[in-house]
Amino acid sequence: MLGKQSSLDIFKAALVVIGNEILAGRTQDTNTQWIAERLTESGIVLGEVRVIPDEEKVIVKAVKELSHDFDYVFTTGGIGPTHDDLTAQSVAKAFEVELERNEEAFKLLENHYGLENLTPPRAKMSLIPRGAALIPNPVTAAPGFIIENVHVMAGVPRIMQAMLDHVLGTIKVGSPILSNTVACTLTESVIAEDLDALQGRYPDIQIGSYPHFRGGTMGLSLVLRGTSQRSLEQATDELINIIKKHGDEPRALSIRSGGGTV
Amino acid sequence: MLGKQSSLDIFKAALVVIGNEILAGRTQDTNTQWIAERLTESGIVLGEVRVIPDEEKVIVKAVKELSHDFDYVFTTGGIGPTHDDLTAQSVAKAFEVELERNEEAFKLLENHYGLENLTPPRAKMSLIPRGAALIPNPVTAAPGFIIENVHVMAGVPRIMQAMLDHVLGTIKVGSPILSNTVACTLTESVIAEDLDALQGRYPDIQIGSYPHFRGGTMGLSLVLRGTSQRSLEQATDELINIIKKHGDEPRALSIRSGGGTV
Repeated sequence: MLGKQSSLDIFKAALVVIGNEILAGRTQDTNTQWIAERLTESGIVLGEVRVIPDEEKVIVKAVKELSHDFDYVFTTGGIGPTHDDLTAQSVAKAFEVELERNEEAFKLLENHYGLENLTPPRAKMSLIPRGAALIPNPVTAAPGFIIENVHVMAGVPRIMQAMLDHVLGTIKVGSPILSNTVACTLTESVIAEDLDALQGRYPDIQIGSYPHFRGGTMGLSLVLRGTSQRSLEQATDELINIIKKHGDEPRALSIRSGGGTV
Repeated sequence: MLGKQSSLDIFKAALVVIGNEILAGRTQDTNTQWIAERLTESGIVLGEVRVIPDEEKVIVKAVKELSHDFDYVFTTGGIGPTHDDLTAQSVAKAFEVELERNEEAFKLLENHYGLENLTPPRAKMSLIPRGAALIPNPVTAAPGFIIENVHVMAGVPRIMQAMLDHVLGTIKVGSPILSNTVACTLTESVIAEDLDALQGRYPDIQIGSYPHFRGGTMGLSLVLRGTSQRSLEQATDELINIIKKHGDEPRALSIRSGGGTV
C-alpha cells in the first residue's frame, strides 16, 4: 500500500489551505488538485489536506501537528499585506522563533515597488520567521519561505504554482507514482468481492473504486496506483479480466506517470 | 468576528472529505464548496475541512478530534460496498460502539435490489454503528447515518446533496450569514491600512481581502460577512468610500443571504 513510509522511496506531505473564502464557499479551491498532481508526479504522497481559517491559533496548531506527522508541509494563502494575512506570524509562533524583517525580502520588495512606494503594508511582507529561507515570487516579488519542513506559499494560483515548482527543484523527492484507470459500467457491488481478492494479491498496489454519474447513468472508475510498473501492469490485466468476466468491457484506460496522462 | 461560538446563534461545523482520489489529484473535489455554501446559508460556520485517505486509523482520529471540537461534523465518501469503503467501521471505532447489521438499512437495500440480488458486498452497506440514525438516500438506497454530532454521507455529489438537504431539515441551524462582496482594481497594499482600521471599527463583521488575476491584470475582491444587516451595510458603505478615496470605483457588488446571490 502507498501512504506508509516503508522501504519504498516515498515521502509524505500535508497541505494547509489557509483562507476564509474557501470555508465560506465563496471560492472554489483549485490549488489542492494542482498541488496533489504535482506532488504525485514527484513521488510525494499527499496524505492530508486541511482547509483552515485565517486565525493565528488555528494556523499554529495545524502547522505544529502536521510538521510533526509528515515529511513535508506546504501551506497556501495568508502572506499578503492586509490585516487578514496572518500566516507568517503564525508559522513563526509555531516554531517559537521571532518574526523579523528579512533583509533579502526587503530588498526584493524595494526593487519591485521602489523605496518611495514601499508603504508599511508592503514592507510587512518582508517580515519572515528568523532562520527561514525565501521562496522566490516571480510575479509580485513578495516571497514565500521555508522553515524546517514547512513551505509557505502564496494563495494566488499563478504565484503558488511558480513557488511550488521552485521548491520541488530543491527538496528530496521520491519515485514517481504510476497509476492506471479503468472505467466500466458495472456497479460496485457486482465486483466488490473480486476487487477485494485482487487487492489481497497485490499489496503494493492501491486499488480505489469510485462510482460516478455521467449522462444520468452510474459508472465506475477503478484506479490502481503504485511505484512498480510490473505490479501495476499485472494487476491491471487481472482487473480487465474481472470486468470481462462480469460481462462488461473496460471503457477507458489511462496510464499516468511522472510525465502526465498518456 | 465570526467563527467563535459567542452570544450569536451560530453553529460551527467541520467537514471530513474521505477519499484517496482527491489526495492523488485525480478528482477535483466540488463537494466542499457546495457544502460550504449550504452551511453558510443555514447559519452554520464551516470552521475546518480535512481531506484524508481511506484509512481506518486516520478516519478514527479525524472523527474523534473534530467531533470534540465542533458542534457538527459532516463526512463525505467511503460508505459504498467495496474494500476501500471504511468509513462506517471507522466511525463505529471512533465512538467505541459495535458495527452491526441495521435492520432498517437492510430492508431499504432489500427493497431496492431484491433479496436475491442482495449480495454480500451490497449487504455490507447495511452495517451501521449501533445507535446511529439513518440518513435516507433517494438515489441508490444505501443510507448515510448520524451518530452523536457526526453526519456520515455519500461522496457522489448527487447523493451527498440529497443527504445534506435532509440533515439540514432536522438539525438546529443558526442565523443566516450575510455577505457583501466589493471588487476593485486597487492593489492590497494600497488600502491595507484603511481596511485594518475598518475592521477595528466593525468587530462583528469579518473582512476578507482576496487578490486575483483576471485577463492578465490583478484585481481585488473584498468580502464582508456577518449576521447583522445594519453593521454589514454601514461597513460596506465605508468600504466603498475608501475605494473611491484611493481613486478607484467598486466594479461589482453582490449581496448574498440565505436565499442565494442577489
